[in-house]
Amino acid sequence: MKAVGICGSDVHYLKTLRCAHFVVKEPMVIGHECAGVIEEVGSEVKSLVAGDRVALEPGISCWRCKHCKGGRYNLCPDMKFFATPPYHGSLANQVVHPADLCFKLPDNVSLEEGAMCEPLSVGIHACRRAEVGPEKTVLIMGAGPIGLVTMLAARAFGAPRIVIVDVDEYRLSVAKSLGADEVVKVSTSAQDLDEEVVRVQEAMGADIDVSFDCAGFSKTMSTALNATRAGGKVCLVGMGHNEMTVPLTSAAAREVDIVGIFRYKDTWPLCLEFLKSGKIDVKPLITHRYGFSQKEVEEAFEVSARGGDAIKVMFNL
Amino acid sequence: MKAVGICGSDVHYLKTLRCAHFVVKEPMVIGHECAGVIEEVGSEVKSLVAGDRVALEPGISCWRCKHCKGGRYNLCPDMKFFATPPYHGSLANQVVHPADLCFKLPDNVSLEEGAMCEPLSVGIHACRRAEVGPEKTVLIMGAGPIGLVTMLAARAFGAPRIVIVDVDEYRLSVAKSLGADEVVKVSTSAQDLDEEVVRVQEAMGADIDVSFDCAGFSKTMSTALNATRAGGKVCLVGMGHNEMTVPLTSAAAREVDIVGIFRYKDTWPLCLEFLKSGKIDVKPLITHRYGFSQKEVEEAFEVSARGGDAIKVMFNL
Amino acid sequence: MKAVGICGSDVHYLKTLRCAHFVVKEPMVIGHECAGVIEEVGSEVKSLVAGDRVALEPGISCWRCKHCKGGRYNLCPDMKFFATPPYHGSLANQVVHPADLCFKLPDNVSLEEGAMCEPLSVGIHACRRAEVGPEKTVLIMGAGPIGLVTMLAARAFGAPRIVIVDVDEYRLSVAKSLGADEVVKVSTSAQDLDEEVVRVQEAMGADIDVSFDCAGFSKTMSTALNATRAGGKVCLVGMGHNEMTVPLTSAAAREVDIVGIFRYKDTWPLCLEFLKSGKIDVKPLITHRYGFSQKEVEEAFEVSARGGDAIKVMFNL
Amino acid sequence: MKAVGICGSDVHYLKTLRCAHFVVKEPMVIGHECAGVIEEVGSEVKSLVAGDRVALEPGISCWRCKHCKGGRYNLCPDMKFFATPPYHGSLANQVVHPADLCFKLPDNVSLEEGAMCEPLSVGIHACRRAEVGPEKTVLIMGAGPIGLVTMLAARAFGAPRIVIVDVDEYRLSVAKSLGADEVVKVSTSAQDLDEEVVRVQEAMGADIDVSFDCAGFSKTMSTALNATRAGGKVCLVGMGHNEMTVPLTSAAAREVDIVGIFRYKDTWPLCLEFLKSGKIDVKPLITHRYGFSQKEVEEAFEVSARGGDAIKVMFNL
Repeated sequence: MKAVGICGSDVHYLKTLRCAHFVVKEPMVIGHECAGVIEEVGSEVKSLVAGDRVALEPGISCWRCKHCKGGRYNLCPDMKFFATPPYHGSLANQVVHPADLCFKLPDNVSLEEGAMCEPLSVGIHACRRAEVGPEKTVLIMGAGPIGLVTMLAARAFGAPRIVIVDVDEYRLSVAKSLGADEVVKVSTSAQDLDEEVVRVQEAMGADIDVSFDCAGFSKTMSTALNATRAGGKVCLVGMGHNEMTVPLTSAAAREVDIVGIFRYKDTWPLCLEFLKSGKIDVKPLITHRYGFSQKEVEEAFEVSARGGDAIKVMFNL
Repeated sequence: MKAVGICGSDVHYLKTLRCAHFVVKEPMVIGHECAGVIEEVGSEVKSLVAGDRVALEPGISCWRCKHCKGGRYNLCPDMKFFATPPYHGSLANQVVHPADLCFKLPDNVSLEEGAMCEPLSVGIHACRRAEVGPEKTVLIMGAGPIGLVTMLAARAFGAPRIVIVDVDEYRLSVAKSLGADEVVKVSTSAQDLDEEVVRVQEAMGADIDVSFDCAGFSKTMSTALNATRAGGKVCLVGMGHNEMTVPLTSAAAREVDIVGIFRYKDTWPLCLEFLKSGKIDVKPLITHRYGFSQKEVEEAFEVSARGGDAIKVMFNL
Repeated sequence: MKAVGICGSDVHYLKTLRCAHFVVKEPMVIGHECAGVIEEVGSEVKSLVAGDRVALEPGISCWRCKHCKGGRYNLCPDMKFFATPPYHGSLANQVVHPADLCFKLPDNVSLEEGAMCEPLSVGIHACRRAEVGPEKTVLIMGAGPIGLVTMLAARAFGAPRIVIVDVDEYRLSVAKSLGADEVVKVSTSAQDLDEEVVRVQEAMGADIDVSFDCAGFSKTMSTALNATRAGGKVCLVGMGHNEMTVPLTSAAAREVDIVGIFRYKDTWPLCLEFLKSGKIDVKPLITHRYGFSQKEVEEAFEVSARGGDAIKVMFNL
Repeated sequence: MKAVGICGSDVHYLKTLRCAHFVVKEPMVIGHECAGVIEEVGSEVKSLVAGDRVALEPGISCWRCKHCKGGRYNLCPDMKFFATPPYHGSLANQVVHPADLCFKLPDNVSLEEGAMCEPLSVGIHACRRAEVGPEKTVLIMGAGPIGLVTMLAARAFGAPRIVIVDVDEYRLSVAKSLGADEVVKVSTSAQDLDEEVVRVQEAMGADIDVSFDCAGFSKTMSTALNATRAGGKVCLVGMGHNEMTVPLTSAAAREVDIVGIFRYKDTWPLCLEFLKSGKIDVKPLITHRYGFSQKEVEEAFEVSARGGDAIKVMFNL
């Protein structure tokens, strides 16, 4: 392993020993956004040799269930995934991993960028499921790390206009510098919903075809549902409270469909294509870098947990 | 007009002068589930002649907007629809209607069955949007008129197994007699959600691929979302409260998609095919029949509003 | 192994030591339409026990290539398939096969019917790719074994009307008895193309939405292409000459799409559902049965090669 | 009318009084690639005023047939289309046309570019039907006007790599200058098919996901079919001979699907978005410009018919 990014779920596990319904019962290595250099390959591996720089897709699925056979292996109930109990993660010096989940980096893509394939994959899977393309305007609720990778992916999928919404001025300025066409600053007050919908629609200046809720609050989801045009799609990307109170009936009656995402499937080749061609540049997202000493590790997790100007915190091992 | 059914929305308009966000401001004829006999045709009409028995699709769309041009004319913002203000309905002796929205009845399909094409279209559109087929098991929440037509449509689309859920014993017995594989009686208590999900899944005895919420409560929608398999679909058909409190995040994280429906599009030919071939029999749904005298009209609406053993109340004009 | 059917490709290999571009270089066991009884299972197998009656899906794919990961594992270039050189087939007393490709037979499905899942899968995969459903009329060119299983599958997928075409009176009578709505006898003369299209369309009495060419001649494909409505689909199922001379430009200009099939993917569960529920009955297709003595084996292949009234020849081991 | 381009079909009509199965029986105005300035609008038109610069979509469909209602109005059998007998074209000073088929030009899009929306629409419709996107490499057979607009459209839809093939050095140099990643010069000799497939695949250096045959010969189509990866798509855009001799069986057996196109549907808004944003620049395609004097008209058609360095010939009225 050479580069490992910190994800919100890593911080969750560290602080609470759980994330969603996954509970840590034994000591567990965390980390799953990673790239490294091949040390040794199995005797049947033809595609890789020692010394190859690779990005790792973290989940090993069963290839026997109907999800795997049907092309949606991310839904495999027997998935073995880095840092999802009881499986260890990849914030370690070495890991053993199947060759078909190790993707060789193009020469102009760094190991850090390779590690960024993981969060970027979330954005790409979201764009695929929401069918983003050159005919789809895009609204993004939330300018955190996931909102930003979703924005970069939506741009690479050809979205002609992207509006991004957040409560934080700094994050919006980052979004703007990374290519958002328009940003909208909102408050957390629930009363402002209707006005917020109007402001978002005005910022788009056109029908909103696809919305991504990358925050995961009842309010952000409600804004997304009400702002999206009849026949559009809302993709719930962010993991917030499970129960949400949202205007579901009026959304359904305008045939605004809701799609969710769970991780990603078969996204690494496309990530690497986007990084290689320069259609996506993830380097500005890496705001903090740390080595692997005890002290640095502690600081890295503190900085990551604090948020603020830290978008992606990366270990260089 | 020869046969006109009473829909819940008709009762709403009669009682409250409104339905959803549509408000009646001028006296308005109600009714939109209808069939009749052609009296006269325009000079350019080649497909129909006086004397033809026809079922009427009630909405006239603009054919200029992007929804109309894109094949989703039901979402047309300029739709002129029977008994949606300010347009009159069809509970009248005569109406003028475009020839391409008048569908000739096969010889073995009665006028009453023709009028039933309208509610049946809701079920068919729901099945199309949820992609029901011979590989999709189906759960239906709610055994009212809409739940029942959705069940009949799902069967005709090839669903191998259908479980239907309601709070009312009588309605479930009707559902059973109309072909449900299994029925589940539940309570309205919100506490029983988890247990209800287990009971529904056990009644299916297999993964639930598609669920239809034909009731429209937070609880029915929650059951549907939690009971449906990862990668499945939930279709919200019933119009209940706008705001719902539902486990949206966990559904999204299992990629259970939510699709809504608004009316239907281009369903009459398929309805008539199903009725003609006998794949669907709507006659058992017509439980009450009335003539058009003042007294009978009053009774018809009272019976329809009361529900109970009245599934579909039909006027024979 | 308890029941093994003879496929046209088996006869090909026996006679010519090749089939399409596959060439037999070493002695090879043939056979791939099979069902049997589990003798022993591996230590990790939970889904099966000795004594279970199972139907076998014959191809083992790599689960590493993009086809496998994308849900189209039938296109895997590293597929190991029964009786496709250099892999042995299943016309043998015993085979070793992965548990996830052994499908337990419902109690009311016989081993012979289990073996029929293989040819039936071809019909099912064809219907899936051509999107057959209750809104699609179906034309089938060729009433041989593949034409007949495609017909049975199309019916089970809800096709409202099926017309089947052949040069052979007997085969058409079988098709009729198995449920074809209409049969059309044609000649092999190339001159009659236009007239044949008219006859086929008249037999349908409606637009032809989907056509299956289960014969694989330039003429059958031309008829299919010209007879299918604008915006329809033609599925080429039969393997005939590689080069075909067909009216491709006029088909393209009516947006009649051409889809092909290669074997099948994930069809066994649906086959067994259809057989269990009685939606499909494959028993009438099994016209000849043989034991496994030298003499019987020889006669079985002779009968199968001769065609005529032999639709499916089955070994009972 | 202010700008009208000459299409190959116009030249056909002029020379032979027919095009495909359409025959000119009465004197007919030709021309259908056009833009102009609104002189007068009907009393119900709200979207346009006199003086607006607009591009015209040339076909008026019936909005009554199942194609129109189903979102594929380009297949409408009752389409009234500029310069398709018996309807006059738009190479005229004035035309009367429905407001919903007149699309207002953005300020930075010229009338000539507006006229180019028509050929560009063919490329866009082809890319939509072949599902081009950032994950699809593209092969284009033929670097004529249609090949070039298809290339521009494929790039705008996000194709990561485009290889274009022609027999003409000059055309290939134009393709290269317009953004082709690689060009391949081939001969017209039928013998070279296998070698040509190898050269094309090597030029791609990756699987070929989508191929467009913009030439319409048996040879170009054969190359496209054989070069495209298993599971890919070939779109037949060019209108050549109707009968083609092609390796259809092997393509079908690799599930290489063939889709055709007929004109386009609802493409003008996307064309204008691409032109406005600069994602597509059609100006280099306009190689010759003429006024509307008798002499200039004659020369314009001669130049257009001759081909060579004339890609698009445009009248400025």
